[in-house]
Amino acid sequence: MRIEQTKVNQMNIKKDMKVSELMEEFENCGVLGSGRVARASDLLAAMINEEDMHIFMSMAGPQVPGGMRNIIAYMIKHEYINVLVTSGANITHDLLESFGGRHYRDFGDDDEKLNKAGIGRIADVYTQNDDFEIFETEINKIFDKLSKKLDNPKDKGIISINTLLHEIGLIIDDENSILHQAAIHNVDIFAPGIVDSMLGLQLWMFTQDHNLILDVVKDMHHFSDLVFESSEIGGIFLGGGVPKHYTMASTLLKGGLDAAIQITMDRPETGSLSGAPLEEAKSWSKAKCGSNLANVVGDATIIFPLIFAAALDKIQ
Amino acid sequence: MRIEQTKVNQMNIKKDMKVSELMEEFENCGVLGSGRVARASDLLAAMINEEDMHIFMSMAGPQVPGGMRNIIAYMIKHEYINVLVTSGANITHDLLESFGGRHYRDFGDDDEKLNKAGIGRIADVYTQNDDFEIFETEINKIFDKLSKKLDNPKDKGIISINTLLHEIGLIIDDENSILHQAAIHNVDIFAPGIVDSMLGLQLWMFTQDHNLILDVVKDMHHFSDLVFESSEIGGIFLGGGVPKHYTMASTLLKGGLDAAIQITMDRPETGSLSGAPLEEAKSWSKAKCGSNLANVVGDATIIFPLIFAAALDKIQ
Amino acid sequence: MRIEQTKVNQMNIKKDMKVSELMEEFENCGVLGSGRVARASDLLAAMINEEDMHIFMSMAGPQVPGGMRNIIAYMIKHEYINVLVTSGANITHDLLESFGGRHYRDFGDDDEKLNKAGIGRIADVYTQNDDFEIFETEINKIFDKLSKKLDNPKDKGIISINTLLHEIGLIIDDENSILHQAAIHNVDIFAPGIVDSMLGLQLWMFTQDHNLILDVVKDMHHFSDLVFESSEIGGIFLGGGVPKHYTMASTLLKGGLDAAIQITMDRPETGSLSGAPLEEAKSWSKAKCGSNLANVVGDATIIFPLIFAAALDKIQ
Amino acid sequence: MRIEQTKVNQMNIKKDMKVSELMEEFENCGVLGSGRVARASDLLAAMINEEDMHIFMSMAGPQVPGGMRNIIAYMIKHEYINVLVTSGANITHDLLESFGGRHYRDFGDDDEKLNKAGIGRIADVYTQNDDFEIFETEINKIFDKLSKKLDNPKDKGIISINTLLHEIGLIIDDENSILHQAAIHNVDIFAPGIVDSMLGLQLWMFTQDHNLILDVVKDMHHFSDLVFESSEIGGIFLGGGVPKHYTMASTLLKGGLDAAIQITMDRPETGSLSGAPLEEAKSWSKAKCGSNLANVVGDATIIFPLIFAAALDKIQ
Repeated sequence: MRIEQTKVNQMNIKKDMKVSELMEEFENCGVLGSGRVARASDLLAAMINEEDMHIFMSMAGPQVPGGMRNIIAYMIKHEYINVLVTSGANITHDLLESFGGRHYRDFGDDDEKLNKAGIGRIADVYTQNDDFEIFETEINKIFDKLSKKLDNPKDKGIISINTLLHEIGLIIDDENSILHQAAIHNVDIFAPGIVDSMLGLQLWMFTQDHNLILDVVKDMHHFSDLVFESSEIGGIFLGGGVPKHYTMASTLLKGGLDAAIQITMDRPETGSLSGAPLEEAKSWSKAKCGSNLANVVGDATIIFPLIFAAALDKIQ
Repeated sequence: MRIEQTKVNQMNIKKDMKVSELMEEFENCGVLGSGRVARASDLLAAMINEEDMHIFMSMAGPQVPGGMRNIIAYMIKHEYINVLVTSGANITHDLLESFGGRHYRDFGDDDEKLNKAGIGRIADVYTQNDDFEIFETEINKIFDKLSKKLDNPKDKGIISINTLLHEIGLIIDDENSILHQAAIHNVDIFAPGIVDSMLGLQLWMFTQDHNLILDVVKDMHHFSDLVFESSEIGGIFLGGGVPKHYTMASTLLKGGLDAAIQITMDRPETGSLSGAPLEEAKSWSKAKCGSNLANVVGDATIIFPLIFAAALDKIQ
Repeated sequence: MRIEQTKVNQMNIKKDMKVSELMEEFENCGVLGSGRVARASDLLAAMINEEDMHIFMSMAGPQVPGGMRNIIAYMIKHEYINVLVTSGANITHDLLESFGGRHYRDFGDDDEKLNKAGIGRIADVYTQNDDFEIFETEINKIFDKLSKKLDNPKDKGIISINTLLHEIGLIIDDENSILHQAAIHNVDIFAPGIVDSMLGLQLWMFTQDHNLILDVVKDMHHFSDLVFESSEIGGIFLGGGVPKHYTMASTLLKGGLDAAIQITMDRPETGSLSGAPLEEAKSWSKAKCGSNLANVVGDATIIFPLIFAAALDKIQ
Repeated sequence: MRIEQTKVNQMNIKKDMKVSELMEEFENCGVLGSGRVARASDLLAAMINEEDMHIFMSMAGPQVPGGMRNIIAYMIKHEYINVLVTSGANITHDLLESFGGRHYRDFGDDDEKLNKAGIGRIADVYTQNDDFEIFETEINKIFDKLSKKLDNPKDKGIISINTLLHEIGLIIDDENSILHQAAIHNVDIFAPGIVDSMLGLQLWMFTQDHNLILDVVKDMHHFSDLVFESSEIGGIFLGGGVPKHYTMASTLLKGGLDAAIQITMDRPETGSLSGAPLEEAKSWSKAKCGSNLANVVGDATIIFPLIFAAALDKIQ
């Protein structure tokens, strides 16, 4: 064993330190949490710098309510990613902000009191019913436009989720919106569990007296085309859930991911895919044998801004 | 403070102990993990015994591969639950066993070797490609039947996920199948993320040359009817994910859950709904103010059999 | 690969089920959490049945406040274990109950209110200042007796922790006391971090005006004798911390553990020994290569009563 | 409720970002993980800037093997902290590096192979037997010196752990050593569980034929003096275990901590003090009612360098 090359270097901290300098200390240390974070940051930069690699990003959990909206929109704007797979909730909260709503803090955790005050709680992030009422009005205006557009013999009112989100993104006039940036930069958004959200609820109510059919299988035709078009596929997995598996499973068509990073607090013990290390995907051909995979156990709203800020200094 | 009534009793263990006797020790102790487990078990029995309560159960994570299939089928057979919301994966694995496939163990965790041997890994549970090939053949036969049945001017090839699963369950001839038991006992199964599974993949391939449209919003019409028909609603949440939120959000139409138990290893810190304690649902009117809620931090494949076995001795 | 022998059996639950029958279902399933629990239960029974094996048990975390006191006392009374390594806190709480104090529940989590009411909180377990005042009076009476006994030219007031705990155990008149049962059954108790507890605090105050020196290194002489006397060494690890490592490291003198079970919620990512799987101990010769080791990720106050109750039916 | 002041601001990332700029984004966001990290960083700077506050730092888990040695030594050198409470293991590994040993990486996790190669594993950090042999030789030389120094009628060979560590620190000639920096800067180090380490093992073997008595209670006399001398007490808790409780409990003598930050992956469910939020300490008067407390759920080797680097830009 070549001991010389494998020493752990103690980390050093100084005033006025840049994020990328901190990351270099993590890299020189190279073990435990800091080692994992450094490898993920380095791999993120490498994936983005790789011309032939298309990056599919998945995002579960309350990333938009938790402050990650601009970071994701920035990544889309710079076309660092090609596909975003997320939950109906993150899309709902992206739209909520575009329609003038906000997320709030410092209201405590007495859920019965919050209920009476018309405030919905996501851990220590809060939403207001008033904002959801505006959301309801605005999203229904958009559904109405779309329904009319699809009311023709060719479409028969049928739309895929991906196209729905693209159409909404085109209508939204908000530079900071994930949906808007994706629409104008041709980044595809998928949300296979979209019905399970406020957006889904509004869709359901709209369809009670309008002809609008959300064909959930149709998305997969387009997604598979995107997979086949990609020479190499990189993955960014923030959290687990349906977005993680949907993203991962899509790559099966091309033998799996070539490289990927995962940041999640979920653990492998229960056997849930959310907590599975990326290596497990190799057995299923959802990651290639020999692929470059980096797992970080941590909170994505802390770890991803950190590794992305450091990666930016390496991106050409 | 009335100190007298609130003493912690030390637990006692003896030979030939019944599960319900162990649970009684947990209850008398009443604190930390054993206290939470005992409250959940007690509430489970109470919910099932309550004539006017309909129970909606959600199940995420690899519960079927992890050995929970017969327990769920038993609950359905005895009509202890009225609705089951789960993932496409659990449905796929239920069908895999009905079609003669199995789940395996003791193959180690070298994922590249497993890949070459045609074995897919879920932590320490394994599946074989051969079994999935049979799954593919058999499920396509069923799709074919259904497609023909729906090929008429009224249906136009459109089907809801719930109806699809009911139809499959009627065709499957397997006493141990969750889908089969649900179909013959009129227990409704929902799987809003169904496309994100092997079943979903087969559906997508089938629809490439057949007219079969999975209308994901359609389910919500039926689910909302089930909610309105329920005098009181109880919830059983094994794991989190889309099944948890979809189940919870449905109850919004009736002011939220009246009672519920949750068993998950997920934690609240990331703000993910999966790890949120049930109390948070009150702020959103997804659980009633004053509802009876029991949270257990633990692995569902250990904790649920334990609390259900103890609850059985109290069920009338 | 011999597929036949490695199938996962779905678990079955029935009314009036015995704990050992539930454990048999876990064993037949054999994967994920239930598989790990079954292997630990089986190994526990085997270790106790093995005549030539001495069992060293370590116990961290609030096991006595959390309801495990009688179970541990029972194990000592039946001489299922030979050594117990624990924290000063568990010993303090064992004595607290012997002196007439209790643990309480249902006081909520407003720590400032609890402080004013003289109530100390351990998650949802509570203690009262009044009980600690009695503890103080009683333990000082015991220290006084011991100090006089040690006031001779041979002892010079010096005592090891292990001997101190043995002497206290002989004085305590309480069948349910861990210390008392250990004293009368010649089970050795070690508590290397004893100063870090209410007992330690009282010791410190006592020594301000009495000659009593706690020689922390002296214990290791006796512990090493116990290790050398053991043909084979089994380990039971509830939680991690100093008790885990102290127990494990002692076995180094004889090439490490021959068999062991561990139950903890701690995880390996931070590199902390508390969360390390038992296998890691092999690299340090704290577990033998080829030793039989079972790790369970779970809450010891739930899992240990469960596996011990099932093991009892197998113990000869 | 004053909604205006409580909005969540979406985070922004840019090239060449300073760590303190990233922390400002976390602060403006203010919720979930990033909010907790920002509050801890801000409080750390405030505690260090507060002239009248003495800071007691506790450090459990493999912080020295994990790359934190220089950061802790830097904090001591700049007298940012006044007391350090840690494990025998961190002290052992600090000395190991001073004696020329190192920590290594990239050896895999086959513990039986590692054992045969003389390599001890701490997750993905490795140590070599050769380095421990040098440690043994060197530490025994130091024990010998100390034993001779204490061999007089006044000391009778008795020494407190704190004094032992101070004396070792004076002898060690290594700018990067935590023990050395502490010795020359009059920062006190306590290690109540010191026997539970390689250092403890060597101590035990040395005392078999030398007169050296480690009086574990003696430390508390000095520690209590340090507490009484402090106008205000701040706490930094990396990980839990004995170091956390010992540090916290010492402050009882002065009504508890005035301010503190905690970084740990441990959770409250098991009731273990390691996972308890700092607020719980208020009930025990180990933190003052009204004290300023910040908890972060995360890996200290990632989070502490991040918050300390950001805090440095605010320290006067």
